[in-house]
Amino acid sequence: MDKTYTIAIDAMGGDNAPEEIVKGALLARDKYKNLHLNLYGDKGKILELIGETKQDRIKIINTTEMIEMGEEPVKAVRKKKDSSMVVATNAVKGGSADALFSAGNTGALLASGIFIVGRISGIERPGLLTVLPSVDDPKRQWVFMDVGANAEVKPSYLYQFAVLGNFYATHVLKKPNPEVKLLNNGTEEDKGDKIHIQAYQLLKNGKQLNFTGNIESRELLNGHADVVVADGFSGNAALKAIEGTALTMFAGLRKILVNGSLKTKIGAALVKPALKEFSSVLDYNNAGGAVIAGVKAPVVKTHGSAKAKTVSNTIGQIKIMLESNLVPDITKYVDENKDQFKIILEEK
Amino acid sequence: MDKTYTIAIDAMGGDNAPEEIVKGALLARDKYKNLHLNLYGDKGKILELIGETKQDRIKIINTTEMIEMGEEPVKAVRKKKDSSMVVATNAVKGGSADALFSAGNTGALLASGIFIVGRISGIERPGLLTVLPSVDDPKRQWVFMDVGANAEVKPSYLYQFAVLGNFYATHVLKKPNPEVKLLNNGTEEDKGDKIHIQAYQLLKNGKQLNFTGNIESRELLNGHADVVVADGFSGNAALKAIEGTALTMFAGLRKILVNGSLKTKIGAALVKPALKEFSSVLDYNNAGGAVIAGVKAPVVKTHGSAKAKTVSNTIGQIKIMLESNLVPDITKYVDENKDQFKIILEEK
Repeated sequence: MDKTYTIAIDAMGGDNAPEEIVKGALLARDKYKNLHLNLYGDKGKILELIGETKQDRIKIINTTEMIEMGEEPVKAVRKKKDSSMVVATNAVKGGSADALFSAGNTGALLASGIFIVGRISGIERPGLLTVLPSVDDPKRQWVFMDVGANAEVKPSYLYQFAVLGNFYATHVLKKPNPEVKLLNNGTEEDKGDKIHIQAYQLLKNGKQLNFTGNIESRELLNGHADVVVADGFSGNAALKAIEGTALTMFAGLRKILVNGSLKTKIGAALVKPALKEFSSVLDYNNAGGAVIAGVKAPVVKTHGSAKAKTVSNTIGQIKIMLESNLVPDITKYVDENKDQFKIILEEK
Repeated sequence: MDKTYTIAIDAMGGDNAPEEIVKGALLARDKYKNLHLNLYGDKGKILELIGETKQDRIKIINTTEMIEMGEEPVKAVRKKKDSSMVVATNAVKGGSADALFSAGNTGALLASGIFIVGRISGIERPGLLTVLPSVDDPKRQWVFMDVGANAEVKPSYLYQFAVLGNFYATHVLKKPNPEVKLLNNGTEEDKGDKIHIQAYQLLKNGKQLNFTGNIESRELLNGHADVVVADGFSGNAALKAIEGTALTMFAGLRKILVNGSLKTKIGAALVKPALKEFSSVLDYNNAGGAVIAGVKAPVVKTHGSAKAKTVSNTIGQIKIMLESNLVPDITKYVDENKDQFKIILEEK
């Protein structure tokens, strides 16, 4: 039988919690036979939702507090000791769960991951990692990190993001020799501010990485890289600009097609299935949740408005992270390459 | 009669130079009766293109060198003293022209603007300013600055970008009380790195600005601001991500519509006019060229692949900059508010 894993589920985080989280957990439980799911939250409510369903491989742990979406993250994590998120994170820290899932407050999950689960020794700053599609070749998914955890970075952080992203690409996306690029404001080696110029040199000299230079945000969706490394500020700006432009364009398209002439309306009805298929390529939710990369266990955040199916898919993503030995392999690599990491730290 | 202005035209810069530049200049000459256009470039070639056309309000100044698109900007400007761009810029500096147009090397034009035309006294760093559309409300154009000149900024630069953007919005876009926002990785006051947190405070306390807080790049196309201030690194990342996503989506759409089933193809033919209209809203070239803002005269760059019509439109944009007294009004304002600018400089 497959090795079994236990995933701690923050059942109260997200706009549709606990309903969609619990439904999604049940879907995942039925789909992935080697997973045990521990649900943290309001036991009464969760039991009501589960109803007559069998509770195989499901455990409910009652918690009395909730971290809201708008709360100040660090303060919330510190104060709400009995919140579903904090208790679930402590379970991972204590070893009674192998990984953590949440659709709740991103900042609070980041703080929980970093301060409770803890950084992998040698990784200075964990970051937010997400997987995006390529429009030209929907099968060429790529890893984008950091997309918002670290507004201020040092060159060494960027190097470490590359290592983390590289492991994610090999282990979870199963890419044999991922092409790593640095998000910058031009493709030439000397582009960007001091930090990016120095990071370029670190990446170029990092012999275990297949680093192929800078990438501009204009090219991100065109499938030119498997891993794109960014500081959290411009990575966030690029990610949100992509999301915003795609959403705005689809909304604008819908508007002109629906409000158009009769001819346009007939045409719109005919192209609708093709448009729907196209929009699903760009729906980055299909690619799963955002990972707090660089901490001692898989900690994954799906978007706040996630429905059951997305919750289940994200749990499937965590399963691959666990089965591929992602975190232990990163830990081992960083430990074995201490000297290299040390040089980088001194250089900065 | 209207006041007349002379615009120096770099006739050799751009992928379609000199053909489309000269054609565009002739269009603009016919359209804008108070403009004199001085064309800098290969006199023989330009004369050939003009042919039998009357040379009213057109002057040709022969130059023997050209700055190529891929050249290292600062070096090129320094070495190629007889290039069309450098000679045209010197004409602006010397007073024989009021403004400069080019479709050539952006970096070289930036260097020419800053080092030859010169900074407005009190403006520490000129930047690249561009105008973008809103998809929700195509009439609500907005000013975006800096989109790439300054990868590294100080809070005072960001404040000055806001002042420059604000003047552009009032003078050129004719907005009475422009809403100014700061591009940041969240809407809260304490978001971003130290520089953006400090810039927020400067902008909030800058009493002559209608500053209404941070904006995330996700909202840029939704018409929530008239002026968006950004550091050149993340501004560039956001701008190129918007461009790239829009281009990639249109290309992807075209592909699925053309390669689709017969039903899809028929539908595609019917919706084509509506799609074309929609894509023109997002075609940011309609909004004109990128302005080197903060220098002592209007210096405007249109994109390298510009055709005659875009060249003519960009010359029309320069005409509005001149007629609205943009640069003199900025110069006067900065001079009259020296104390305020001084405080900002000391605070940083």
